[in-house]
Amino acid sequence: MNFNNIGLITNSKDDATKKALIELVDYLQPSNHQIILDRCCASLLEKPQFAVYEAKTLGQYCDLAIVIGGDGTMLMASHFLSDFDIPLLGINLGHIGFLADIPADNIVHHLAQILNDHYVEDERFLLKGQLFRDDQCIYECDAFNDVVIQKWNIARLVQLETYINQAFVHRHRSDGMIIASPTGSTAYALASGGPIVHPTLNALLLVPICPHSLTNRPIVVDGNSLIEVVVVTQEIDHTRLIFDGEIKQTLAPGDRITIQKKDKKIRLIHPKGHDQFHILREKLHWSK
Amino acid sequence: MNFNNIGLITNSKDDATKKALIELVDYLQPSNHQIILDRCCASLLEKPQFAVYEAKTLGQYCDLAIVIGGDGTMLMASHFLSDFDIPLLGINLGHIGFLADIPADNIVHHLAQILNDHYVEDERFLLKGQLFRDDQCIYECDAFNDVVIQKWNIARLVQLETYINQAFVHRHRSDGMIIASPTGSTAYALASGGPIVHPTLNALLLVPICPHSLTNRPIVVDGNSLIEVVVVTQEIDHTRLIFDGEIKQTLAPGDRITIQKKDKKIRLIHPKGHDQFHILREKLHWSK
Amino acid sequence: MNFNNIGLITNSKDDATKKALIELVDYLQPSNHQIILDRCCASLLEKPQFAVYEAKTLGQYCDLAIVIGGDGTMLMASHFLSDFDIPLLGINLGHIGFLADIPADNIVHHLAQILNDHYVEDERFLLKGQLFRDDQCIYECDAFNDVVIQKWNIARLVQLETYINQAFVHRHRSDGMIIASPTGSTAYALASGGPIVHPTLNALLLVPICPHSLTNRPIVVDGNSLIEVVVVTQEIDHTRLIFDGEIKQTLAPGDRITIQKKDKKIRLIHPKGHDQFHILREKLHWSK
Amino acid sequence: MNFNNIGLITNSKDDATKKALIELVDYLQPSNHQIILDRCCASLLEKPQFAVYEAKTLGQYCDLAIVIGGDGTMLMASHFLSDFDIPLLGINLGHIGFLADIPADNIVHHLAQILNDHYVEDERFLLKGQLFRDDQCIYECDAFNDVVIQKWNIARLVQLETYINQAFVHRHRSDGMIIASPTGSTAYALASGGPIVHPTLNALLLVPICPHSLTNRPIVVDGNSLIEVVVVTQEIDHTRLIFDGEIKQTLAPGDRITIQKKDKKIRLIHPKGHDQFHILREKLHWSK
Repeated sequence: MNFNNIGLITNSKDDATKKALIELVDYLQPSNHQIILDRCCASLLEKPQFAVYEAKTLGQYCDLAIVIGGDGTMLMASHFLSDFDIPLLGINLGHIGFLADIPADNIVHHLAQILNDHYVEDERFLLKGQLFRDDQCIYECDAFNDVVIQKWNIARLVQLETYINQAFVHRHRSDGMIIASPTGSTAYALASGGPIVHPTLNALLLVPICPHSLTNRPIVVDGNSLIEVVVVTQEIDHTRLIFDGEIKQTLAPGDRITIQKKDKKIRLIHPKGHDQFHILREKLHWSK
Repeated sequence: MNFNNIGLITNSKDDATKKALIELVDYLQPSNHQIILDRCCASLLEKPQFAVYEAKTLGQYCDLAIVIGGDGTMLMASHFLSDFDIPLLGINLGHIGFLADIPADNIVHHLAQILNDHYVEDERFLLKGQLFRDDQCIYECDAFNDVVIQKWNIARLVQLETYINQAFVHRHRSDGMIIASPTGSTAYALASGGPIVHPTLNALLLVPICPHSLTNRPIVVDGNSLIEVVVVTQEIDHTRLIFDGEIKQTLAPGDRITIQKKDKKIRLIHPKGHDQFHILREKLHWSK
Repeated sequence: MNFNNIGLITNSKDDATKKALIELVDYLQPSNHQIILDRCCASLLEKPQFAVYEAKTLGQYCDLAIVIGGDGTMLMASHFLSDFDIPLLGINLGHIGFLADIPADNIVHHLAQILNDHYVEDERFLLKGQLFRDDQCIYECDAFNDVVIQKWNIARLVQLETYINQAFVHRHRSDGMIIASPTGSTAYALASGGPIVHPTLNALLLVPICPHSLTNRPIVVDGNSLIEVVVVTQEIDHTRLIFDGEIKQTLAPGDRITIQKKDKKIRLIHPKGHDQFHILREKLHWSK
Repeated sequence: MNFNNIGLITNSKDDATKKALIELVDYLQPSNHQIILDRCCASLLEKPQFAVYEAKTLGQYCDLAIVIGGDGTMLMASHFLSDFDIPLLGINLGHIGFLADIPADNIVHHLAQILNDHYVEDERFLLKGQLFRDDQCIYECDAFNDVVIQKWNIARLVQLETYINQAFVHRHRSDGMIIASPTGSTAYALASGGPIVHPTLNALLLVPICPHSLTNRPIVVDGNSLIEVVVVTQEIDHTRLIFDGEIKQTLAPGDRITIQKKDKKIRLIHPKGHDQFHILREKLHWSK
């Protein structure tokens, strides 16, 4: 595929980001690529002569988005770009990331390859979460990694009920519940005892956080399932709803959160030879 | 579907089995069903006037196999019947089972319903495991729950390498490795820290047993993946190969075990209203 | 030991509590025991002719405190009575508790035995937690089960540093850290992956909550150790300090929490034949 | 303390061991220390002019034993020397060890310090395990890390009963049971889900291996407890008894294994500034 219009996105203004951005611009400009900046990138360049858009509208104007930062920046970009069909390429300024895997010290080499059609595409799905109160959907948001229903403002456990495709699973007391995509299986879900789910598997992951009952184990179900979590805890303001690590809503007793696969996908671009298990070995110190 | 020829299978000769068997025969005989017995069932009846076959050939003659015992008996029956396309119905003589869910104290009620076409069918896949030595396949066997490569004759760890679709995953030291089907996720894999995988999910589960590296976590991959485990440990007789809890082979250094989905399926028959989560709640004491 | 002055404590006003309270009073009054009520008990009796005190001062006037409720009520009572040297006897209105082990349906039998000197005493220690800000101790509180430093108002991880007897243990990111007494090992610490510590062992337990690093495991140290947890996270209001499930303080960056054994003990009275492992078997469904 | 007679012990004949041994001898000989070799060390030196003894008797002749190898060699040496009151100093030829912490590339520096009385002593206790059959003690052995009762020759679970100070704990099915000292808490017990127990804590650790019941968690008890494990499994040759990773006995149904603290201790010598948590950080990658 031909990438002519290339968007550049970041959420950091530090020197490393600026350096990587300049390197990208210096490489792309001579090769007649159209460069489109989000506001954060624009602020890092002196007198940029490129189109500048809000990150959330930038997807309209480009065929590839290059994201400078790390996995957190990739999460942010995925939210802005999920409604466009734009592939994402992640430049990692720190350690190798699960999502952002181009090392900052070798940008040009990898980018040249990718623009020459030497790349692999890796389709990931997003989660769509909806909050129902009195049978009205009062909030809706997407998540790339996970939707979390978690205790708040109390030290004790919250009580939740879980349903999968309308079938009752359990009523349980815990610190909360994580509904993760395969992509999110290596994020918060892993810290809570969940398994590693290969990103290509069409599955959803339910991971209770510190469940009172020791037999409440992580559950992996079909990716097309409809997950529902109902807040049983009777106190108001004791539970909150979190998308990809951002607190979005305070929950009330009886609130019902549905989580399912979103119909739009995220396309990640990797250099040829991209190896998910290599990343796991690095991140989890499997290689001694 | 019409079940005319009904096979009866067990592996136990105790009184409870005999009682359940007689109840089944007394119900089936008047209603003009053809009854076929395996040798163990035949030995429990005085002067049975029914056809008797080895359990492993019985699948040729029947359209439904009723298995009397528990989940272990179902595992055994699944091995005998996997090459025929015969649905299995499990009578559970003890606690409710994951596979055998008809309670022995209510056989006739449930059986009447099922023979009247009030049932649900639940397709499960089997695993095919092959052992390669010097690139020759020297052994092949099926498993319903799991294929396990485990240490033997030593107290210390064994060293194994794992590959998924030819991609290297890790070389690790542990007590062994479990490759489980979703059905097997609630068996040995659960005791080793694996997640619960819904039986309808097309997935395979890799669960290390007591891995030396604490970051070696269970992995869930697509059900069509080819899993390979290579024995790195240099001593002979230090590793063994187990299918559904039966030791089948002693492994040598360099042995390569491949595990993948078998092309034949197991069809389980359940009463209408069968609820996998109900079974989980019972077995794992989720309901208080 | 002679128990003449008997305090009665509860925190519930429901019928079961009232019934148990009346049963206790009816038994104790004729036998010439001095009965002392806390305000909650007093409110349950019509025209009580007994001394009534605040629960926190009641310890001055009695040689035995009978606590009606469950483990939560015992926790509350332990806070009120920890500065007096009064043994506690727990009446359990629900399932058997770890602390309150006299079943409500058999109060008189057990109480008669205990007042006849047929009992065992079980000494437990309390934790003393202190919060230091700018090297000033600005808060101090006791805990029977645990002191918890936990994330708040953010969805992401907090960063904490841990020291044991001034030796640096680790800087880690997690949802928080539990410092538990052996008594608390079967409470929140167990849900977070900690071991069961026998209540008589002189030990403290450090259990990270959902640590980002999978190798951050629970640590058991000598009961006379000084534990320090330092809040590294730079944002204000992102961490809170919890004693026995009650949020007590909001923490600021640089806050240092010290936890050590308190010099006062809690004495629990049990019927003869009290068996800690029996309780574990019941609570954890070890008996099938 | 004055170390005049210094024993040298190893179990390896590789070049690194030889190099370390020669360095030790070259340093010790001029300074008028008496050098005593075990047979393995002797075989590495050409024409050694030193006293040579079996490793198991060497303890009679020296006041300090220097062990060349790693934690495994230290385990071996601890068995040979446990009946003598000889401190052990471990030279580590590979990565830092929990027991052997003198790096091979800096032997002379550390040794000079230690021989000049700049060291810390670290007392560890050993486990004494006894096997009773028909109430006769038919086998007895020591362990530094752990005594393990583990399944053998079967793929399925074994059934064991556990008692602590004669009190019944549970009957459970699993792959086996680990009874570990604090020293052993970072060995096999850690891989099986046990906590890290500080080496100075007077405690014993019971860790079930892959227990069928998910609520069968590790238990930490007082170090002076008497632990008993009874083999319930009815088949012969299905269970074995392992001390520090060495298979010692095949167990029969009804066999009773008792484990308790041995009355002799192991004294480990470390350089000043030895830090147990530093070792943990290194070994478990806590430092990023």
